Amino acid sequence: MKLVVTVMLKAGVLDPQGKAIGQALTGLGFEGVGEVRVGKRIELELAETDPVAAEAAGAEMARKLLANMVIESFKVEVA
Amino acid sequence: MKLVVTVMLKAGVLDPQGKAIGQALTGLGFEGVGEVRVGKRIELELAETDPVAAEAAGAEMARKLLANMVIESFKVEVA
Repeated sequence: MKLVVTVMLKAGVLDPQGKAIGQALTGLGFEGVGEVRVGKRIELELAETDPVAAEAAGAEMARKLLANMVIESFKVEVA
Repeated sequence: MKLVVTVMLKAGVLDPQGKAIGQALTGLGFEGVGEVRVGKRIELELAETDPVAAEAAGAEMARKLLANMVIESFKVEVA
């Protein structure tokens, strides 16, 4: 079963990488670029076949390793 | 209009970061973790209000800056 965990910085946490991308895009001539936020997309192949158990495992993985819960939030989807 | 650009390594391209995450998860006691791939999720706020034009702009941004087309593929979604 394939799981997708998306990790983004929480709203209000400064995102320098996003800011740099926004400035680079404007520098390249793209107009009307506002806020840019960058996060991680982690695709996992799990042996688990029950979607509910897989989603719970994904959330546990995010809390323990994939996300820094102080500044990041995450979302788990079964793909 | 909000745009989401997802950038992932192409299939077949070695993903050391994903491999490290897979090993760390196994080390933490998670069982049945197979392949792990890590990519970027870039959320952009655009002044553009036409979804088709916004999507085209997003693809152009990905080709010019956000993705390395040699080893990465991208997907643009209007959120």
